[in-house]
Amino acid sequence: MKRLVIALGGNALLQKGQRGTYSEQLSNARRTAKFLADVIEKGYEVVITHGNGPQVGAIMLQNEIAKNEVPPMPLDVANAETQALIGYMIQQSLQNELRKRGINKEVVTLITQVLVNKDDEAFQNPTKFVGPYYTEEEAKKLIREKGWVMKPDPRGGWRRVVPSPDPKDIVEKNIIRDLVDQGFIIITAGGGGIPVIKENDTYKGVEAVIDKDLASALVGKIVRADTLLILTDVEYAMLNFGKPNQTPLKKVKLEEIEEYYRQGHFSPGSMGPKILACIRFIKCGGKRGIIAHLEKSSLALREETGTIVVP
Amino acid sequence: MKRLVIALGGNALLQKGQRGTYSEQLSNARRTAKFLADVIEKGYEVVITHGNGPQVGAIMLQNEIAKNEVPPMPLDVANAETQALIGYMIQQSLQNELRKRGINKEVVTLITQVLVNKDDEAFQNPTKFVGPYYTEEEAKKLIREKGWVMKPDPRGGWRRVVPSPDPKDIVEKNIIRDLVDQGFIIITAGGGGIPVIKENDTYKGVEAVIDKDLASALVGKIVRADTLLILTDVEYAMLNFGKPNQTPLKKVKLEEIEEYYRQGHFSPGSMGPKILACIRFIKCGGKRGIIAHLEKSSLALREETGTIVVP
Repeated sequence: MKRLVIALGGNALLQKGQRGTYSEQLSNARRTAKFLADVIEKGYEVVITHGNGPQVGAIMLQNEIAKNEVPPMPLDVANAETQALIGYMIQQSLQNELRKRGINKEVVTLITQVLVNKDDEAFQNPTKFVGPYYTEEEAKKLIREKGWVMKPDPRGGWRRVVPSPDPKDIVEKNIIRDLVDQGFIIITAGGGGIPVIKENDTYKGVEAVIDKDLASALVGKIVRADTLLILTDVEYAMLNFGKPNQTPLKKVKLEEIEEYYRQGHFSPGSMGPKILACIRFIKCGGKRGIIAHLEKSSLALREETGTIVVP
Repeated sequence: MKRLVIALGGNALLQKGQRGTYSEQLSNARRTAKFLADVIEKGYEVVITHGNGPQVGAIMLQNEIAKNEVPPMPLDVANAETQALIGYMIQQSLQNELRKRGINKEVVTLITQVLVNKDDEAFQNPTKFVGPYYTEEEAKKLIREKGWVMKPDPRGGWRRVVPSPDPKDIVEKNIIRDLVDQGFIIITAGGGGIPVIKENDTYKGVEAVIDKDLASALVGKIVRADTLLILTDVEYAMLNFGKPNQTPLKKVKLEEIEEYYRQGHFSPGSMGPKILACIRFIKCGGKRGIIAHLEKSSLALREETGTIVVP
């Protein structure tokens, strides 16, 4: 069980209450690099993926505020920019941490496009809130002028909603597999990857958001990883989450968790996709899908904490 | 002469008078991809680098305008973001163009850090204008509050000036060399690379701008390229540039062009670094340094146009 995809959650780069300054994010990246190095030091071959929620929101907000001076970029470009922003911080922090420990491993970030199906039903039913908050009036103007889908966000204000299509393939998969096979550490499919469709045999970016855990499961399949380790800010997935009888899920077999998933134990926007990512990963040959707390990554690999899905 | 570093200039992505919308830049990238594919089709192993002047300016302006809402990122992060923005467009456009021609080659963008010497004298003498224009009053406030160096730009207004240190090494060089040796096409060191220094054996980003042609010469050395092809919007470097007796430089030997360089024939901000990049490239084992017009890249490789520096 030595090849590992690590999917970093939002808390790897931003902690609650932080505004997201560079020094905050860099200091979190350096802390995260220690957890990653702990795992690498144990001999695991590691591939890193990560979320980008707050960062892509910040870039979209910059695009919006500066739009009269600077032509705003679409969401696929904003995603690419977060791959660089976050990738750079993790890449550099991990290079430094590995050197400090005398581990001779190299790290690089790949700008990664993830193929989605242009007929994915998500395109008919956008559900993912992204970017800044608008008044109803502004929102209706954007609907008219840009054709965006805008909806009231339960947290207040109107926001753009975009499709969250299913990741089907990774355009750069051969390069990814090659680098991993040669012992390099790569950061890939950041923020779920840049979503692209294929039309007339041509790749084209689309304004959508791919779930980063589902994309990570796909990365796991491509590099033939043994373990998918999804790091987040809770220690376990819960049965009956939020109810008086909630129970942490520890080691669980594929069939069992599929049943829980169907029963709706996991909320669609957060734990749901993590569970689904583990299910998919096991179904395409993975040996373990683990959901665990960022700070307990090494413990989780020893199966002393975390929700662990096995075949 | 089959391994080639192609350094794309600003006109590969933006043409005169364009505002820099996504559709403008993507359409230019697609056009540029055809020139690149023409060269790849002839059997050259190609490594791509590129400038980022207008794009990094746009991102810095967004950072400035939105600074009350979104914590602005430093220049090294803005550089990383342009590597993704531009890399993504060229990567996708070239993938599409190659597939259309039935060429089975893969392309990826690497987030690349370029090491500079922390004692580089450029840090004592910042010279490179970057980012938005300010009033004198705003500029003086930024000098006080952020410690930035601000100077009146000859084009009007005050602007930040940053150091332009000499590129010394590429942090990700082994990965670059490995991918090129295996036949992959990479886009690397965009915008001259993210400038980093080494302090206490730790890499750290610095707010500076590395000349993209000098960085490209370094890439050429690292991948042991035969040819460095610097593509720009003129056909030749000129002797006595701008004077009545200006003469295009065609094929020229290293010693001769070094002499012209010392005599000051080439302007420091534009042709100078291109010539210096060719000189350095030849001195570290390259066979040809070519400066040519983007649209004439294939002709230039046949030595039918362009300034061609040889040992």
